Amino acid sequence: MKNGVQQFQVGDSIDAYVLIKQVKKGIASNGKPFLSLQLSDQTGEIDAKLWAISAEDEAVFRAGTIVHVQGDVQDFRGQRQLRIKSLRPATAMDHVRPEDFMPTAPRNKEDMLEEVHQYIFEMNNAKIQRLTRHLLKKHQQAFIMAPAATKNHHEYASGLIYHVVSMLHAAKSLAQLYPSLDTDLLYAGVILHDMAKVRELSGPMTTEYTLEGKLIGHIPLMVTEIDNAAKELSIEGEEVMVLQHMILSHHSKPEWGSPKPPLVKEAELLHLIDNIDARMNMLDRALERVEPGEFSERVFGLENRSFYHPSFTKSSADPT
Amino acid sequence: MKNGVQQFQVGDSIDAYVLIKQVKKGIASNGKPFLSLQLSDQTGEIDAKLWAISAEDEAVFRAGTIVHVQGDVQDFRGQRQLRIKSLRPATAMDHVRPEDFMPTAPRNKEDMLEEVHQYIFEMNNAKIQRLTRHLLKKHQQAFIMAPAATKNHHEYASGLIYHVVSMLHAAKSLAQLYPSLDTDLLYAGVILHDMAKVRELSGPMTTEYTLEGKLIGHIPLMVTEIDNAAKELSIEGEEVMVLQHMILSHHSKPEWGSPKPPLVKEAELLHLIDNIDARMNMLDRALERVEPGEFSERVFGLENRSFYHPSFTKSSADPT
Amino acid sequence: MKNGVQQFQVGDSIDAYVLIKQVKKGIASNGKPFLSLQLSDQTGEIDAKLWAISAEDEAVFRAGTIVHVQGDVQDFRGQRQLRIKSLRPATAMDHVRPEDFMPTAPRNKEDMLEEVHQYIFEMNNAKIQRLTRHLLKKHQQAFIMAPAATKNHHEYASGLIYHVVSMLHAAKSLAQLYPSLDTDLLYAGVILHDMAKVRELSGPMTTEYTLEGKLIGHIPLMVTEIDNAAKELSIEGEEVMVLQHMILSHHSKPEWGSPKPPLVKEAELLHLIDNIDARMNMLDRALERVEPGEFSERVFGLENRSFYHPSFTKSSADPT
Amino acid sequence: MKNGVQQFQVGDSIDAYVLIKQVKKGIASNGKPFLSLQLSDQTGEIDAKLWAISAEDEAVFRAGTIVHVQGDVQDFRGQRQLRIKSLRPATAMDHVRPEDFMPTAPRNKEDMLEEVHQYIFEMNNAKIQRLTRHLLKKHQQAFIMAPAATKNHHEYASGLIYHVVSMLHAAKSLAQLYPSLDTDLLYAGVILHDMAKVRELSGPMTTEYTLEGKLIGHIPLMVTEIDNAAKELSIEGEEVMVLQHMILSHHSKPEWGSPKPPLVKEAELLHLIDNIDARMNMLDRALERVEPGEFSERVFGLENRSFYHPSFTKSSADPT
Amino acid sequence: MKNGVQQFQVGDSIDAYVLIKQVKKGIASNGKPFLSLQLSDQTGEIDAKLWAISAEDEAVFRAGTIVHVQGDVQDFRGQRQLRIKSLRPATAMDHVRPEDFMPTAPRNKEDMLEEVHQYIFEMNNAKIQRLTRHLLKKHQQAFIMAPAATKNHHEYASGLIYHVVSMLHAAKSLAQLYPSLDTDLLYAGVILHDMAKVRELSGPMTTEYTLEGKLIGHIPLMVTEIDNAAKELSIEGEEVMVLQHMILSHHSKPEWGSPKPPLVKEAELLHLIDNIDARMNMLDRALERVEPGEFSERVFGLENRSFYHPSFTKSSADPT
Amino acid sequence: MKNGVQQFQVGDSIDAYVLIKQVKKGIASNGKPFLSLQLSDQTGEIDAKLWAISAEDEAVFRAGTIVHVQGDVQDFRGQRQLRIKSLRPATAMDHVRPEDFMPTAPRNKEDMLEEVHQYIFEMNNAKIQRLTRHLLKKHQQAFIMAPAATKNHHEYASGLIYHVVSMLHAAKSLAQLYPSLDTDLLYAGVILHDMAKVRELSGPMTTEYTLEGKLIGHIPLMVTEIDNAAKELSIEGEEVMVLQHMILSHHSKPEWGSPKPPLVKEAELLHLIDNIDARMNMLDRALERVEPGEFSERVFGLENRSFYHPSFTKSSADPT
Repeated sequence: MKNGVQQFQVGDSIDAYVLIKQVKKGIASNGKPFLSLQLSDQTGEIDAKLWAISAEDEAVFRAGTIVHVQGDVQDFRGQRQLRIKSLRPATAMDHVRPEDFMPTAPRNKEDMLEEVHQYIFEMNNAKIQRLTRHLLKKHQQAFIMAPAATKNHHEYASGLIYHVVSMLHAAKSLAQLYPSLDTDLLYAGVILHDMAKVRELSGPMTTEYTLEGKLIGHIPLMVTEIDNAAKELSIEGEEVMVLQHMILSHHSKPEWGSPKPPLVKEAELLHLIDNIDARMNMLDRALERVEPGEFSERVFGLENRSFYHPSFTKSSADPT
Repeated sequence: MKNGVQQFQVGDSIDAYVLIKQVKKGIASNGKPFLSLQLSDQTGEIDAKLWAISAEDEAVFRAGTIVHVQGDVQDFRGQRQLRIKSLRPATAMDHVRPEDFMPTAPRNKEDMLEEVHQYIFEMNNAKIQRLTRHLLKKHQQAFIMAPAATKNHHEYASGLIYHVVSMLHAAKSLAQLYPSLDTDLLYAGVILHDMAKVRELSGPMTTEYTLEGKLIGHIPLMVTEIDNAAKELSIEGEEVMVLQHMILSHHSKPEWGSPKPPLVKEAELLHLIDNIDARMNMLDRALERVEPGEFSERVFGLENRSFYHPSFTKSSADPT
Repeated sequence: MKNGVQQFQVGDSIDAYVLIKQVKKGIASNGKPFLSLQLSDQTGEIDAKLWAISAEDEAVFRAGTIVHVQGDVQDFRGQRQLRIKSLRPATAMDHVRPEDFMPTAPRNKEDMLEEVHQYIFEMNNAKIQRLTRHLLKKHQQAFIMAPAATKNHHEYASGLIYHVVSMLHAAKSLAQLYPSLDTDLLYAGVILHDMAKVRELSGPMTTEYTLEGKLIGHIPLMVTEIDNAAKELSIEGEEVMVLQHMILSHHSKPEWGSPKPPLVKEAELLHLIDNIDARMNMLDRALERVEPGEFSERVFGLENRSFYHPSFTKSSADPT
Repeated sequence: MKNGVQQFQVGDSIDAYVLIKQVKKGIASNGKPFLSLQLSDQTGEIDAKLWAISAEDEAVFRAGTIVHVQGDVQDFRGQRQLRIKSLRPATAMDHVRPEDFMPTAPRNKEDMLEEVHQYIFEMNNAKIQRLTRHLLKKHQQAFIMAPAATKNHHEYASGLIYHVVSMLHAAKSLAQLYPSLDTDLLYAGVILHDMAKVRELSGPMTTEYTLEGKLIGHIPLMVTEIDNAAKELSIEGEEVMVLQHMILSHHSKPEWGSPKPPLVKEAELLHLIDNIDARMNMLDRALERVEPGEFSERVFGLENRSFYHPSFTKSSADPT
Repeated sequence: MKNGVQQFQVGDSIDAYVLIKQVKKGIASNGKPFLSLQLSDQTGEIDAKLWAISAEDEAVFRAGTIVHVQGDVQDFRGQRQLRIKSLRPATAMDHVRPEDFMPTAPRNKEDMLEEVHQYIFEMNNAKIQRLTRHLLKKHQQAFIMAPAATKNHHEYASGLIYHVVSMLHAAKSLAQLYPSLDTDLLYAGVILHDMAKVRELSGPMTTEYTLEGKLIGHIPLMVTEIDNAAKELSIEGEEVMVLQHMILSHHSKPEWGSPKPPLVKEAELLHLIDNIDARMNMLDRALERVEPGEFSERVFGLENRSFYHPSFTKSSADPT
Repeated sequence: MKNGVQQFQVGDSIDAYVLIKQVKKGIASNGKPFLSLQLSDQTGEIDAKLWAISAEDEAVFRAGTIVHVQGDVQDFRGQRQLRIKSLRPATAMDHVRPEDFMPTAPRNKEDMLEEVHQYIFEMNNAKIQRLTRHLLKKHQQAFIMAPAATKNHHEYASGLIYHVVSMLHAAKSLAQLYPSLDTDLLYAGVILHDMAKVRELSGPMTTEYTLEGKLIGHIPLMVTEIDNAAKELSIEGEEVMVLQHMILSHHSKPEWGSPKPPLVKEAELLHLIDNIDARMNMLDRALERVEPGEFSERVFGLENRSFYHPSFTKSSADPT
């Protein structure tokens, strides 16, 4: 697949495999039902409408299905829309796999995992090192696949580990500027802070909150995970409690989900780095397709602001 | 001790054993240090000043010490103050015990414990019953001694179980009015909701927050306790998670310490009953000594309001 | 009418009398007007569309009209929708009455009124008793018919007295747990607190705010009503003012409509009981049709939360 | 009394009659009680300390007592303080009256009352005119003496009518700029908006909130007063309700004490004029003694701001 | 054009020139695009739909275009809608000018400018006078054309100067009531406070924020303008800084765009007068077409309130 | 001066030169005035009292005076206090200079200035480079001496440039992680963001807000400075406005003093880096003297939190 959904231009005729990411049913004023589809591959998404559907269409074209689509790209209120001419579900004969259509982090997940292990390897405090390694090992399979969120930032496959690795690098840089920081504690906090998202969220495809995600949430889940790990490893001492505090306080304010504010220096910095990385990720994506001299769309996770791309800065789209 | 501190009147000459509840050191304008003491027994508290102290006085008269005091009760800005004539620490010869000077719940703690067991006994859901019984048994010794808070409401020995028993009775009454409620879940929530205060607070004497109280807090501590109990008892199923949710959400709003709001009917009611019992406790104590036709002092825990005792209602001081 | 609107299933063919509760006019993309109807009886509501209407249709099919309808029940975005095949307004020949189609409290209004009178009968304070009885007598006709609100909770015929009776029972139970309470004052507060809703709201059918409801509101209206009643009955004394205070403060906070917060113990409890009863009413209705293991729709009056029905609790739908 | 308290300079020897406005008792570190006195006359206030008092002193020197004082004016932390050399209560022989020592509005109260009557005289709407005249007549005695508040603005004898007259003039000016305004309604609103402060506050000397001031407040009290007046005068019609709404909404927001926001144009303007007049009054007094190029003390009623007196503007102290 | 858009009644057949104020493209359920047009002249606006458009239609019928339209006025959900029968862009042959279709202030802009100059002429402080005159002269052309805002109040051609003149009259009236005010400072503040809206907004037609309006805003822009003017005129002294402070603080609170609150008396009044004039303008327009006894639509700029037109007040529509 | 104020221990006899940083006058209960002094040198501060002062003492011992003091260090409520035995102002004979007693940044100011110039030297955008260099040159003298604030963080001599250099290093590190950033814009924003503090604050000794600091503030002052610089250098183009926006928005929210939120990526990061550096500075100082296992005092600038020093982390006091 040389050209992806992101490259579709108004006027193009399309013949491609895509994933149905979302489906909503509507009823037109002529009384006939239709489907609003969001079609995607790893490069991006496009909207489409399937008019006058049958009950069978409704049963077949569900979120998570890969389809073969033919049609034309039109302009609708300034956005691209695909006018469908033919649509059928992919079969075994088509040799396509759902994971090839999932938006995914821009780096290889095994490489990133290797980097995380390297940070753990360099820790000096054995208790913190063992706890972190134990928990990473326990959740490793899900951890390298999970998104970091359902929306806003890093909401794609391997988004969680991509976010963690990026934060680890930022933590290392800042720890050189503020040398009183305990890097073992800081790195462990970074690695573990969102790890229970593997329990809070349903996984990289059509990500949703799980029942325990809704009723308990990733922060208390992780506090309990650390307690369990310490018991299994027979680790005692203040490290366990302070690590739990790092997790508990990393959203910084009660109204953002942290029952305790950061009361340890490394916990405060963990929150600040988390914030920077999430914001830089949202900003880069918001400005990706914005021409110099133009404003981006409003970004919900950034206080609904619309950002300006100055005419004189180098292109955001070409960060190399 | 026939007459307690509460009964001291301006003009009385006093000869009594009292507990030093709080001490603050000051320096007078003549350059000499003095101590501001808060003296108490089970009936109440009175302020006193010890002028021109020596270094030895400062070492001896500390919070938690029982002393023998002689002096006169004076009026100071509308409040009673004890003018100390002699003061010495009690010794083994005096046959006095600290616990006899602690403010304590108005009911016998063994009776209250028996009532809690009765509520557990009547539960139908075996998983909830076993979890609750296990956790009560584990913490029973501390649970029947602990205060419910460091200040505001039920902040005395056995205050926690007194609060729990009162809430159980309210829960039972309301469950009769709203029959769709699951009483097993509701009672278990009441019994466990503040149980980790035995870890959050230092105990009934000169109550303070512990380190894990400050860094983690009783809500996440209890969520982990329930997880541990379920593992020990090999209990699985939604009951465990929903009980954890009851604990997690019982402060109702993030800014009050609950990372999740109540999302189950019994969790919502648990919060409401907790609120009513705390407020009625604060109101009864605020109005205890207020004459009909007068206003109480301001009550911090009740939005700093000052409450009126109507002239026509029966005396708050005589609720029998 | 053996089976009501609530029992209509997708696939049923319907032939029934129903009340038009709401009407909205739309214009379809073919330029022709249509009506969106909400059809109801005492058991519930269903949506329907009437396409391509004439000016006469628009004049005839108004809110509050009873109609005879034939059609089929379809599924539309997960909700039932009635596809109308024929529709005509009911006439005298049909022998149907609007009040038979109004949602109504689940208890008989005369029985509830009798219970209120019983609470008044047992009062000891003659001034409070006479004021309460006088005001109940004055507004009795409207009081037993009125809804408690236009939406959110108890928003059906006789909802106000149903809410009051439920609160009286809760007040009685709690007064036994907190014996310092003055029950005369508390019961009078419960009975009168929302009584001026008979002036604030237009009545049980298609309930709206009246002009004095919008400009003055039920709280100041009731304060004036009590003043008038006291003058008519030549009652003087603090009871009058304290009762007015109970009404004035029962929303607890200025931003919820109370210019004074509760400054009397019984006023504080009145607010808390009002809150519990409203919340339990909303919760029971939100969870009525929610299967175990599922979440309810979002409930506006409960901070827009969606509630979970645990798989292990007894069915909410079967509270007997 | 040629020179008042306001004119006392550091270094002056004083021999004068003054009013004790406030008294607080303290206990010095030598164990002896003393009194902190606030001494005042119509021109201003000064602090003084009376050391080593007897029980008799405490009984005699109470708030509201006129005393004859001799002493020296000293500087204490940048503020004037009177060092008392002799102090005795005034007696009948001294021929002094408390009202001569009260801070009072800068205009004659009979003149101001005459102006209010003139505004009523010019009204065209007979219902509004009769209601306003009736209520003014009923409360006239207290109305011309009352302060407008206990603190912040117009908190002196006749402060209420001074505030009302000033607002009437502002209302008249603005009504010429915005001719769609109904001046009858606007003027009646101005005259009545704070009239129930004669019931809410205890009067011009040592002003405090009354019991009905605390439990009901001047806004609901006035709504009821208008209802009573309309009944006495047999006036019906929307004017009564709209006038009640003007009163009810004149604090504009629930959190400032208005259960309804202004929903009528004249009610909105009433609030805005009330605000302007209160703010100009506070500003003039805050800047009265501030030299050009200096900042005032912080003003609580103006969001705790400290205001600057530009070097180039004409002197605030000399507004003629 | 005897009758304007405002006078179009349901049932009328229309043949008129109008301005396209806004355009939005939609796609109907038959897949064909259409345009939603807002058509306007100086008297008001009306909505219209143009169905089944061609690509050429879309290119021609843009905001800012004057068109000749024929059609019928219909009722759609209680609002007038124009059913278009023919539509063509106006050409040079039609002899129509865009500015004749712009909503404009109700007074002649040259007259208003003359009044502003009169206020400047009467100033006594030469520095303030020269600064004000210089800045007015610099921006005069745009100043007399500019709207005061993009929406809410005075959002029409010459709205800015209309707002300023109205505020100058109010300032003059109030300065007579509060004589300590420095009128030079106050008038200069009124004239300059919003002057940089000529840079913040794009002009009277299809008003939008400019880039410097979005990134800097009219308040900091004007502070810099005053600095520049003082440099050009070689004016030094506190007047420059205090005038800058007047501009900086005229929104009163940081959350409304003022980094400093008013700290000078005239700055406080400037804010209050700005507020009154904006609110009276919004109220007059909201109530313009509201019949006695009816409520207005909700007004966004007035806390989303809906205002009542009392039955007894003179017609808002006839303020003469 | 081998041992500074910071090293004084309870029990030491002191003979040293110190700076009087603050003075407050009090009056003791014996009626005699005294001075509360805060004595400091570059290492820290200590409180002292000078009893029974003469008028001459008050005139001589003012803030900013260097004195020679002899006395003993005592413990007062857990804090060190100096008991003065002799005190005299330093004279020319003493060869001491005020700047030797000022708390100062831990790095040499010339070195830091050199680093700032290096960052400017490496810029690629000539407009940004020239503007930044011009403004640095203009304010260089004050810039390298100024504190960054009056309290909370970097509130010592050369605190501003220390803060800027630290932020430049952080900016450089983060720009490597997020390569789409324009470093010219980011570095210029860092260098200029607080430069107008040289006008807002009075300087490194006894730092106070200037008049233009109070009425305008450093943010609008700097926006104007950039405008002036661009005019002087004849620089036009978007760079000027975007740099002004960087300054204007660097407090991020209106309620923190920024009339515009960051709308450019580099502006967002500027705010985040400013926040991190201020917080790390406050944290390091709060924890400086806190033993492992102890909590710090509350830190006003960090939401009044008290921070924990874990027992297992390396000593904060020894960050080398």
